[in-house]
Amino acid sequence: MQGSDFAGRLAAVAARARTADVDAVLVTPGPDLQYLVGYEAVPLERLTCLVVPAEDPAFLVVPRLELLAAQASPVTVLGLTLHPWTEGEDPYALVASHLPSAARVAVDDHMWASKVLHLRDAMPGVEQVLAGASIADLRMRKDPSEVEALLRAGAAIDRVHALVPSILGAGRTERDVGADISAAILEAGHVRVDFVIVASGPNGASPHHEVSDRVIEKGDVVVVDIGGTMPDGYRSDCTRTYVVGDPPEGFASAFAALMEAQAAAVAHAAPGVSCESVDAAARDILTSAGLGDHFIHRTGHGIGLETHEDPYIVSGNALTLEPGMAFSIEPGFYVEGRYGARIEDIVITSVDGLVVANRQPRDLVVIP
Amino acid sequence: MQGSDFAGRLAAVAARARTADVDAVLVTPGPDLQYLVGYEAVPLERLTCLVVPAEDPAFLVVPRLELLAAQASPVTVLGLTLHPWTEGEDPYALVASHLPSAARVAVDDHMWASKVLHLRDAMPGVEQVLAGASIADLRMRKDPSEVEALLRAGAAIDRVHALVPSILGAGRTERDVGADISAAILEAGHVRVDFVIVASGPNGASPHHEVSDRVIEKGDVVVVDIGGTMPDGYRSDCTRTYVVGDPPEGFASAFAALMEAQAAAVAHAAPGVSCESVDAAARDILTSAGLGDHFIHRTGHGIGLETHEDPYIVSGNALTLEPGMAFSIEPGFYVEGRYGARIEDIVITSVDGLVVANRQPRDLVVIP
Repeated sequence: MQGSDFAGRLAAVAARARTADVDAVLVTPGPDLQYLVGYEAVPLERLTCLVVPAEDPAFLVVPRLELLAAQASPVTVLGLTLHPWTEGEDPYALVASHLPSAARVAVDDHMWASKVLHLRDAMPGVEQVLAGASIADLRMRKDPSEVEALLRAGAAIDRVHALVPSILGAGRTERDVGADISAAILEAGHVRVDFVIVASGPNGASPHHEVSDRVIEKGDVVVVDIGGTMPDGYRSDCTRTYVVGDPPEGFASAFAALMEAQAAAVAHAAPGVSCESVDAAARDILTSAGLGDHFIHRTGHGIGLETHEDPYIVSGNALTLEPGMAFSIEPGFYVEGRYGARIEDIVITSVDGLVVANRQPRDLVVIP
Repeated sequence: MQGSDFAGRLAAVAARARTADVDAVLVTPGPDLQYLVGYEAVPLERLTCLVVPAEDPAFLVVPRLELLAAQASPVTVLGLTLHPWTEGEDPYALVASHLPSAARVAVDDHMWASKVLHLRDAMPGVEQVLAGASIADLRMRKDPSEVEALLRAGAAIDRVHALVPSILGAGRTERDVGADISAAILEAGHVRVDFVIVASGPNGASPHHEVSDRVIEKGDVVVVDIGGTMPDGYRSDCTRTYVVGDPPEGFASAFAALMEAQAAAVAHAAPGVSCESVDAAARDILTSAGLGDHFIHRTGHGIGLETHEDPYIVSGNALTLEPGMAFSIEPGFYVEGRYGARIEDIVITSVDGLVVANRQPRDLVVIP
């Protein structure tokens, strides 16, 4: 991404490796690789591996046939040495040969098991630990270019929610509605649809329901939770709750409590407060409203180059929010056999407080 | 997928575990899980894990908030026991508690490193090996419902290639062309766009180039390699080569050799021949035409619930093809600074020989 300080990020990972007594950090294609060197390689079975030694310059092991693609990425400007391997060679031995004295290496959290275990076998006696915190701590603190990217993503998904009332209606299946929403997500400027949840009536009681062939009926509450990836790799994620016709008995008052809970968590979130206290701010209100047992998930998750990343807004996470942290605030309630409801915004802490990336009204949207 | 013999697949995995002296096979969300029990869970940080013990019934460890989604999948019909865990609990300890006497476990090849190493720590002294062959061997042998699914996917991507001449033209960027192709992939019946390569002129020399802001010019050769996922999870993948106006000097004769090489490999592929001999059938012709050094990748890869899976059509793979194996045949040539070319079809071996899933003409498509 333009303006990203890849050299600074690599230096920070190496510094964290030294602190953690790790000799090298090994990163395969995925969000960590994209964050550290801007190389958007697709995770495939052939090994591509960024090696960040604690003490020496970073280098990239890359399949010969992906060499041009790697060279076209920021790794060239960064001056990384590329070590290509051709089909028939053992790329794991190649990595090992460049780390002859390593005693402990960190692997990126999403590295495939096939690569983890092949590296283990190619480097016998070398302890493997998770890169996790070394990279997640960096990614969790967004720089100004990343904040801008997340605001653009938020505006894009807002444009989709603005269209939902014209897409959603009685007589259509969740799947058909979802297909139209997918098209709208691309039309709004995303390059990839990451997920489309259209959870109508009783399907709404499953927070991770996606779409089904259920025909939406009058009186259905419909949870629409959608997100995609922008051209720069940053993600959107936003939930609004709709109702077709009149809401079911008792729903309106519960939804009012949910709006209050979501707003309270947004009002509470700011640099200096803990992640778990943001969760509690939402949960306390739902509990007072008698909905505590129906709020069966954490209040939120970090977002950036992945839809779910640190920081997690969950009981037990004492991490203190700092400026530049981006995460969802998405309380909900789920009543088996009847319906679900959720309101979700992406927010970003700043030195001045909080920026809310999603601006569509949060009220229950009534579709005639 | 309808008609899939999930119970038979689970039994086969357990049998292979016994043969390999593995006490249990652990499978997290991804294509292996979808194949074995039909549950299309999204890979997220919360642990969902199918456990297939060698001797006991399989069970599923699942986050509480995904319980309804899991119950809605075929795991219910299969009668699997579900072990839900709530936030704050340790799901890795939960897996370990159900395998008290395990000495060796297999993990699915795509399991995230974070899960591999947490399982390692939760089960000290238990050897971890790759499930790889235990599951890949099964997935490589498609049943009739899977063959039908791949033929439907092939027909869908053929419809997109039929539209490419109306999308591609001088003056448009690769990115704009790619966006229109993405929309056409969804329109053709896919639920997800997996990749869109529009590699024009010199960008064609990089086999894994995707799209860029390069403006396509008269005289450009353009490699279009595209694929998506159908509603049942099966994938499409097809490459055709286009030229805008007249091809560059010398290109036509090289492309004729490529067509011959691709046809020769298709003619050779059949049950009873080795994967590497299919590679050689294409490679020998390109080598005779003086293009051997420019054919820098293997001839093909298996396809099914993943775009790249076993069997790989590559030198060194002595595996004998059997009926029901599905793979790409996609030779190409790549000339740095000038252009690339590739022709790719998905083929499926059957008792009668070979079924070709892609039917669009393979000639160089000239766009005026």
